[in-house]
Amino acid sequence: MDNIQETLIAQGKKARQAARILSTVSTTLKNQALLNMADQLEADCQEILKANGLDLEMGGQQGLTAALLERLTLTESRIRDMALGLRDIAALPDPVGETIESSRRPNGLDISRVRTPIGVIGIIYESRPNVTADAAALCLKSGNAILLRGGEEALNSNRAIARIISAAAIETGIPDGAIQLVDSDDRQAAVLMMKMHEYLDVLIPRGGKGLKMAVLENAVVPVIMTGMGNCHVYVDESADLAKAGPIVMNAKVQRPSVCNAAETLLVHKGVATRFLPAIIAELQADGVQVRGCPATQQLVPGICRATEDDWAEEYLELILAVKVVASLDEAIDHINHYGTGHSEAIVSENYSSVRRFLNEVDAAAVYANASTRFTDGGVFGMGAEMGISTQKLHARGPMGLKELTTSKFVIQGDGQIR
Amino acid sequence: MDNIQETLIAQGKKARQAARILSTVSTTLKNQALLNMADQLEADCQEILKANGLDLEMGGQQGLTAALLERLTLTESRIRDMALGLRDIAALPDPVGETIESSRRPNGLDISRVRTPIGVIGIIYESRPNVTADAAALCLKSGNAILLRGGEEALNSNRAIARIISAAAIETGIPDGAIQLVDSDDRQAAVLMMKMHEYLDVLIPRGGKGLKMAVLENAVVPVIMTGMGNCHVYVDESADLAKAGPIVMNAKVQRPSVCNAAETLLVHKGVATRFLPAIIAELQADGVQVRGCPATQQLVPGICRATEDDWAEEYLELILAVKVVASLDEAIDHINHYGTGHSEAIVSENYSSVRRFLNEVDAAAVYANASTRFTDGGVFGMGAEMGISTQKLHARGPMGLKELTTSKFVIQGDGQIR
Repeated sequence: MDNIQETLIAQGKKARQAARILSTVSTTLKNQALLNMADQLEADCQEILKANGLDLEMGGQQGLTAALLERLTLTESRIRDMALGLRDIAALPDPVGETIESSRRPNGLDISRVRTPIGVIGIIYESRPNVTADAAALCLKSGNAILLRGGEEALNSNRAIARIISAAAIETGIPDGAIQLVDSDDRQAAVLMMKMHEYLDVLIPRGGKGLKMAVLENAVVPVIMTGMGNCHVYVDESADLAKAGPIVMNAKVQRPSVCNAAETLLVHKGVATRFLPAIIAELQADGVQVRGCPATQQLVPGICRATEDDWAEEYLELILAVKVVASLDEAIDHINHYGTGHSEAIVSENYSSVRRFLNEVDAAAVYANASTRFTDGGVFGMGAEMGISTQKLHARGPMGLKELTTSKFVIQGDGQIR
Repeated sequence: MDNIQETLIAQGKKARQAARILSTVSTTLKNQALLNMADQLEADCQEILKANGLDLEMGGQQGLTAALLERLTLTESRIRDMALGLRDIAALPDPVGETIESSRRPNGLDISRVRTPIGVIGIIYESRPNVTADAAALCLKSGNAILLRGGEEALNSNRAIARIISAAAIETGIPDGAIQLVDSDDRQAAVLMMKMHEYLDVLIPRGGKGLKMAVLENAVVPVIMTGMGNCHVYVDESADLAKAGPIVMNAKVQRPSVCNAAETLLVHKGVATRFLPAIIAELQADGVQVRGCPATQQLVPGICRATEDDWAEEYLELILAVKVVASLDEAIDHINHYGTGHSEAIVSENYSSVRRFLNEVDAAAVYANASTRFTDGGVFGMGAEMGISTQKLHARGPMGLKELTTSKFVIQGDGQIR
């Protein structure tokens, strides 16, 4: 524990020093580093696969679920995708130095607001080793140093990836310390990171409820919570059911393990009889377990009762809670009460219902007549994402390069005093 | 204690409900409320002055300093200024509903990012009762509910102001609960607010080191730290000393008790002999106590030695630490090490020195050839300010209406699935 703390502080200091230099590094050099990192990932593919093999072997022994093992698994093609991701980020515009707004004040002062890096960013994540490369690349491009704390189950894979990309970055001229892995399988390391406010400007936890609770309890560093997704699809009285069916199926079934998948279906009582029996049959045919409110149970016999807990649950698997609501108001109230502020969709052809839903539902992303599954940095045109923020401060929704920056006011005068 | 907690939770719930409604209230109604609040402040001027008299009497008995009593004092003219502030805020554009960016994606989805209120904002502040009206008005205009926790020494004044403006807002049609005072002189109330993450979306503490420490220790609610100002003026080798003198005097002497006043003067060794004796004499003539590094002491005999603590201190009074530095690099390093990231100024006629200082100094506001005293929402064209953020997340520098908003992604489709 003392040892981890000392190591972390040493890493924090090194990151601070690197960040100071990194904030003034040219875009050209940063892009060269990203391309070099991509090339090295491909060149050292076998080394990464070998390390990943160790993780998979240990994971198998420790009885990780098939889903977790799948997320942990790297292949040549997945490593090529990682490299491709770095090249995509190299191709994006550099946010640093952009003048966001500017004005000349009456006293002759020129005041502009200029985008700058945040400084040192910490990220705590789980399972998928590609996050190591994605997060490091986004931080490098936005001029930030990063401390990466991946899941214990992926330590060998992350170690290999971080070693390769960090070496490639340094070789290109990026300061040592810009990309650092917190190389420890001790859970205490994550808790210590939450308290390193002298060295970390922000901490981004990507994970489930346990991690969120630990952050609420321990974090002194400013935090951006990501990826809590209890998402809803609301099928309005005036919905086009030919759109509603595919949207519900896509939101629930296409990839149930991700945060933008739907967990509850709300259906207006006016279309419940026409819509629910058919969609529930289709969901069940695709292996979805449906838990319904009493009205749903009446319409479709044999499904189990949804409890109060079900409305609040982020299943992340093939389970869907279903509730019949009396009105748009009841739907909006239900979502604002139980939702986690991630992604919420209405299916409706009624102009006023859509307008009210989009205005009144309090979430990072609100959809009219489209699947919640689109909430994603890539889909939104950001190239990649650091996570999907479900809080309101600083960044909300998918976080790309811009969301990894802050700003400073630059004031130029010729002797003005007050 | 249990009682305060129950009251606070009841206030939090009421604020949440009000915020939901407030987020959809029209700009016209919000402006009418602001104008009505301004009129009522003026109409009930005597009631406010009477309450303020009680605070001043108690403050006198408790031995508050003259400076604190001065900050606490209200007059007819100060109440008119408060009313004027509310009318100014009514005249500003409403940030809510602004589309920040939008694009049509290849699959036909229209994605836009729209400015929305944050929700419920808590503010903890001290002494000056006008903050009660300013903060409430900024939050109302930006569609947020507010919990106001002023200083114990101003409780009677704040109670009167909050009662008057809240009643005027409700009378205009603003939901009850939008403006609430935390009516307690128990310090525990502030600590409890720091933990109310279910009811507060953000907490803005305005105050000194003690409050900052309490926040670091207790806050679970996301916090925006404001107003920590250990500000520097650096006089470069190539400075125009005819500009440097007035800038140093203005930054230190014009209003020493505020966070954008200078606390340390850094002088390049190349101009120290020409500049320091004269400016120190001028500072001393205005009552400033100077604490110098050894080189400063050699140039100006009889001034006391600045210790390590002096470099880190935010005096907020007529004391100035002075250091001779060997280079621009030493100046930047000193500022980035000891500064609080508030306002930092260089006086220089050298293009490259100015450019490097503005780029490399890590602060909310960086100045070339102007006084640090300009860091202020009004001066920057924001109309008023909620505080000056010295952190990097969400808002940096003076916080006006825009900084009291967040955004949501609004996605409109016609049946798109992934």
